[in-house]
Amino acid sequence: MPRAVVLLSGGLDSTVTLASSISGGNETTALSFRYGQRHIRELDSAAAVAKHYGIRHIIADIDLSSFRSSLIGDSGEIGKDRKDIGGDIPDTYVPARNIIMLSVAAGLCESIGAELIYIGANSVDYSGYPDCRKEFFDAFEEVISKGTKAGADGTPIKVVTPILTLSKSDIIKLGMRLNAPLHLTWSCYEGGGTPCGRCDSCILREKGFRDAGYRDGVAP
Amino acid sequence: MPRAVVLLSGGLDSTVTLASSISGGNETTALSFRYGQRHIRELDSAAAVAKHYGIRHIIADIDLSSFRSSLIGDSGEIGKDRKDIGGDIPDTYVPARNIIMLSVAAGLCESIGAELIYIGANSVDYSGYPDCRKEFFDAFEEVISKGTKAGADGTPIKVVTPILTLSKSDIIKLGMRLNAPLHLTWSCYEGGGTPCGRCDSCILREKGFRDAGYRDGVAP
Repeated sequence: MPRAVVLLSGGLDSTVTLASSISGGNETTALSFRYGQRHIRELDSAAAVAKHYGIRHIIADIDLSSFRSSLIGDSGEIGKDRKDIGGDIPDTYVPARNIIMLSVAAGLCESIGAELIYIGANSVDYSGYPDCRKEFFDAFEEVISKGTKAGADGTPIKVVTPILTLSKSDIIKLGMRLNAPLHLTWSCYEGGGTPCGRCDSCILREKGFRDAGYRDGVAP
Repeated sequence: MPRAVVLLSGGLDSTVTLASSISGGNETTALSFRYGQRHIRELDSAAAVAKHYGIRHIIADIDLSSFRSSLIGDSGEIGKDRKDIGGDIPDTYVPARNIIMLSVAAGLCESIGAELIYIGANSVDYSGYPDCRKEFFDAFEEVISKGTKAGADGTPIKVVTPILTLSKSDIIKLGMRLNAPLHLTWSCYEGGGTPCGRCDSCILREKGFRDAGYRDGVAP
């Protein structure tokens, strides 16, 4: 039974990615990060999703509080402006975030003998993020191959991106087909008890459910 | 004036690497990690070295306590056996450590507009570490180029490894030539007030000073 580490933010995309790993027959460990994000609410969702599947859930603490980004900390508004979507690199870009998370996942793979990293990156809705493109993940596989004990031993760790080229509505359809607990997920950039309904992430989610023809169990 | 982020553990190698960045005319920021290492003592040395140069020093907290390694935590003896040196991948290998540290450094570079990462990796004394080889650093540059905003903007971040192929005694000679504060550095794998004189790191350091023809200011 192959072992996989799945990066689980607690959002919709990573939850469908986790469902994909589990339905693929992998012995799956979920890995989440506490990195000073404002929407810490999503970690509760990640825990609920992991509990739903009865899998091991590891939360790694990474303090990036010295890094500038509108997603982190208390400063400024988070891009609520639709013009951010699909344009240049968005405000909400966290420097090197995927590289850092994949690196820690690679370390965890080595520790527990896993050979697969699943990441719910998506190059469609967030095409502005440079670390959400296939060529980035290919380059990262090369780094893991060169830079880890597993790679040196001839069993390199692979990066799996099951939703990379799917639209939001196709991600939701896949999640429904896999029976993923979408009602437990959290997408809103803001904290709070209910989604704000106004941030980029809420807008994309709402449109995705509408296009897929499903009702969102956690709609604002 | 180019900006550089230097990975500074507080040991001899990273301190000479820092001296190399500063003498190269870079506006330098030192980056250290608190990752659950047993020899937290080295962080005091890192702070002392940064203070010596009057540069900004950032300590990032990364909790890897769930990762197995004899370097981390309280379990087991740290390889005091000379047969570890230069053989297979040593006990003291921390899974994906250099990848993780370089990733965070890349994120910091993006945050402060730095274009260079200096890392005191060495492929001579520690040839067993897969993430201390030139081909690994080349692959990592490719990842940063593909996966960061800086890379997307056409100004990729470079990884500089000034001591990669130097012997320990040549590193010490370089440090002396650059007037690096070697007396402030800490190499021992153990904590404590004075170096143990018995671990791999102490043994390599002692031999290095002896071969270089200098007296070690912090000899046990």
